[in-house]
Amino acid sequence: MDDHALISEAQKDILSLRGISALLDWDEKTYMPEKGIEERAHQLALIEGYTHDKMVSEELFSAVKRLKKENLAEKDSIIVRELFKDLEKMRKIPKELAESLVKETTLASGVWQLARKKDDFNHFVPSLERVIKLKQKEAHHLNPMVSCYDALLEEFEEGMTSEKLENVFVPLKEDLVSLLHDITQSHVYGDYTKTDIQISRADQETIVKDIIKKMGIVDETVSLDVSEHPFTTRIGEFDVRITTRYRSQMDCFFSGVHEAGHALYELGYPKEYSNTVVYDAPSLGIHESQSRFWENLVCRSNDFWEGYFPYFKRFLKNPLSLEEFFAEINHVTPSFIRTDADEVTYCLHVILRFEIERDLMNGKLSIKDTPRAWNDKMKEFLGITPPSDNKGVLQDVHWSFGGMGYFPTYAIGSIYSAQLFNAFSEENSNTQKLIKTQEFSPILEWLGKHVHEKGRTMLADDIIKKACGRGLHPKAYVDYVKGKYGKLYDL
Amino acid sequence: MDDHALISEAQKDILSLRGISALLDWDEKTYMPEKGIEERAHQLALIEGYTHDKMVSEELFSAVKRLKKENLAEKDSIIVRELFKDLEKMRKIPKELAESLVKETTLASGVWQLARKKDDFNHFVPSLERVIKLKQKEAHHLNPMVSCYDALLEEFEEGMTSEKLENVFVPLKEDLVSLLHDITQSHVYGDYTKTDIQISRADQETIVKDIIKKMGIVDETVSLDVSEHPFTTRIGEFDVRITTRYRSQMDCFFSGVHEAGHALYELGYPKEYSNTVVYDAPSLGIHESQSRFWENLVCRSNDFWEGYFPYFKRFLKNPLSLEEFFAEINHVTPSFIRTDADEVTYCLHVILRFEIERDLMNGKLSIKDTPRAWNDKMKEFLGITPPSDNKGVLQDVHWSFGGMGYFPTYAIGSIYSAQLFNAFSEENSNTQKLIKTQEFSPILEWLGKHVHEKGRTMLADDIIKKACGRGLHPKAYVDYVKGKYGKLYDL
Repeated sequence: MDDHALISEAQKDILSLRGISALLDWDEKTYMPEKGIEERAHQLALIEGYTHDKMVSEELFSAVKRLKKENLAEKDSIIVRELFKDLEKMRKIPKELAESLVKETTLASGVWQLARKKDDFNHFVPSLERVIKLKQKEAHHLNPMVSCYDALLEEFEEGMTSEKLENVFVPLKEDLVSLLHDITQSHVYGDYTKTDIQISRADQETIVKDIIKKMGIVDETVSLDVSEHPFTTRIGEFDVRITTRYRSQMDCFFSGVHEAGHALYELGYPKEYSNTVVYDAPSLGIHESQSRFWENLVCRSNDFWEGYFPYFKRFLKNPLSLEEFFAEINHVTPSFIRTDADEVTYCLHVILRFEIERDLMNGKLSIKDTPRAWNDKMKEFLGITPPSDNKGVLQDVHWSFGGMGYFPTYAIGSIYSAQLFNAFSEENSNTQKLIKTQEFSPILEWLGKHVHEKGRTMLADDIIKKACGRGLHPKAYVDYVKGKYGKLYDL
Repeated sequence: MDDHALISEAQKDILSLRGISALLDWDEKTYMPEKGIEERAHQLALIEGYTHDKMVSEELFSAVKRLKKENLAEKDSIIVRELFKDLEKMRKIPKELAESLVKETTLASGVWQLARKKDDFNHFVPSLERVIKLKQKEAHHLNPMVSCYDALLEEFEEGMTSEKLENVFVPLKEDLVSLLHDITQSHVYGDYTKTDIQISRADQETIVKDIIKKMGIVDETVSLDVSEHPFTTRIGEFDVRITTRYRSQMDCFFSGVHEAGHALYELGYPKEYSNTVVYDAPSLGIHESQSRFWENLVCRSNDFWEGYFPYFKRFLKNPLSLEEFFAEINHVTPSFIRTDADEVTYCLHVILRFEIERDLMNGKLSIKDTPRAWNDKMKEFLGITPPSDNKGVLQDVHWSFGGMGYFPTYAIGSIYSAQLFNAFSEENSNTQKLIKTQEFSPILEWLGKHVHEKGRTMLADDIIKKACGRGLHPKAYVDYVKGKYGKLYDL
């Protein structure tokens, strides 16, 4: 077999194995009977092992290294470049460290759940300590030339650094804190009391299916299932799954739209890179920009609801006016839980985590001081103090699975989404009308052309730079929330 | 690693891989979006490859051979005996032959579906010819000392031979043909016209969940999903899935009960053989006996419906008396399609297939003469002639996937189920009352003790011999159908 055939076969197998892992994981969260969990862990570990073996194979690495030296056509050289990065990264982590990480994070997940039950951070401390030490080692293996946090951040957001983030997050924080202050002091702030939005489970299903179909989701390639925490996963190129959950209020609708945004990205990668590592997103932040784009910029907008409410309102159990409804789904309030946060406070939750995590991983904050640091920052950013660990430092699953460096991608996604929306609007003078009439195909086409079809051929920030004129920058997001919420709260 | 540790780790991995295959297959039939099929085939092939590699590993085979020579405790010697059989069988088939079989049967499945669409057996002939030739080669590798058909039969029903089957099937056929004749000539035969049983989809779900729970199915280990053809699969020791389908009439109920019978067997294997190849059924026939036991002997009986109908009848859209309902679900009629057949004609459909398949595989019947042989036997056994290939020789999927030797297990299951029911009734004088009151736990316990908990420690026929006093024998089944249908049709 020649080198080209070898690397293309290897990539196909690696992607297939990843698809199998994705299915095992998806099934665990949707249909697996409770008692299947232990066997499932063994099945996942087996597939992980096979994937690892394929990725560290000497034969594959040698072929990639040989191809790297050749004068390749553009497409091939991109594939070889990205594949080399993936393999090199995998080979940098000693096997014992990789195994310890799997073992400790599996244990830590259980301990974290127990700590949540007890509402006691101290219970989680020894586990977290072990995970952090291992992640620090991992960071050192990945890149000893940069700070520990930056090495980990690179795993989720290639090309991003703490410094770049700080340049964006510091002014963003100031603007959002000040906007939040203005909103809560606004003379109309108290006018909207919490309104109950009640829709039957069957109707929630009808609505979510209607809206994701309008976004461009087709049954032949996407299944919609139910899980406790909504997520999107790709099991094959033509097999993407999204999940949602049925609760009262609008959770099902916005979760569905959010995940559908992820799914459209997964389905839009460049077909010419099919079955290669380039058939993927370059970062989590840009992935999140797609879900946020649809969830917030499109489907939480005034334009959208002006057009959609006449159809939608028939499902409401309690009659509401468009104004009441719109105010309710855009209610801004300082709150403890990130996943419940509104568009104004959400990034503040994320920046808080970024600052704490960065200091923790770089050894500038001790684990035992973390809850205090958390609560101090909550007070500083949002003016509130969590009454307990569950509503503070214990709320997120990320540290227990070793996902340090992950959080910033949520804010990056929000920021990118506003930048992309601006760029789209500048090119399309009929944006408001498209959204009002749910004429989404020009939007999807534009996102496809400027984001999805780039796959991993470019860094995320370069994709944004090309599409929007500049890379990560807070202005578009700040302008967006100031405009929208300034109007809503009569500032 | 010592030999014991080596074989136990290998078995755990092999079972885990089989569980992964089972999940990939289950998902394909339940939730996978249509377009996922091509990638799914690659994923299944990958896992097949890994399973094959593990099973033909020299290291494992050497360990098993060494252990075989040792003086082992009973449990270990059973494990080693069964594992040796599995590995030896796998090693007997040359790799090229195994690959050709996968390739040809995959193609043949597509061709068979097209032939079904065209309703034209000739379209299927060239594919079937290739599959048969490969299966004949396979049979020769498996056991050159017996007829081709017997070598293949052994794969599904270890210890069974054509001769043994003929000794059972010939008298059974005579008795069933004569009973069918008496029924259709009965003075009350025309009294029951086809009655429509209509139950809403939601109510069908309520009823099937009620009945399988009463049988002993618990949510923590069994999921119930929907597929075109109902089936049962084991993804892990504590993760068994059954599927059903929602149609009008009683299809959902009886499919559910049938599959739940399989699932209870899967969940009842001997725990001390956990994670070994002995944690399994010794044959497909005995597996089918469990589904038939619950579906027919229990849940299609007069006793059961006397007790269950008062609850059940509230779900009927059209009012029916118990007598009308019972006559409808036990209506006997010669029909073309095996899967629609009643208790009297079902085994005749199977015996027809056995006779044709045996002659085909042993070279005594040519493929081109098969449709005529089929139709002649239909006339002889059931007095009817299929109007087309789809209602005759083309109806079953089995030949396209190379499942020659599979069919007899359906009749063996029916026969065993009656033998087991007799043995249970002899030991339990209150059988009628247990069934009438849906007090199923003593039945499940008895089946557990006499069948499920044997796992693969004994051959199927030895399990039956021990539980019922003798091995496969048609008397119990003939007595059962004569008694039940003699009464129903006033013979």
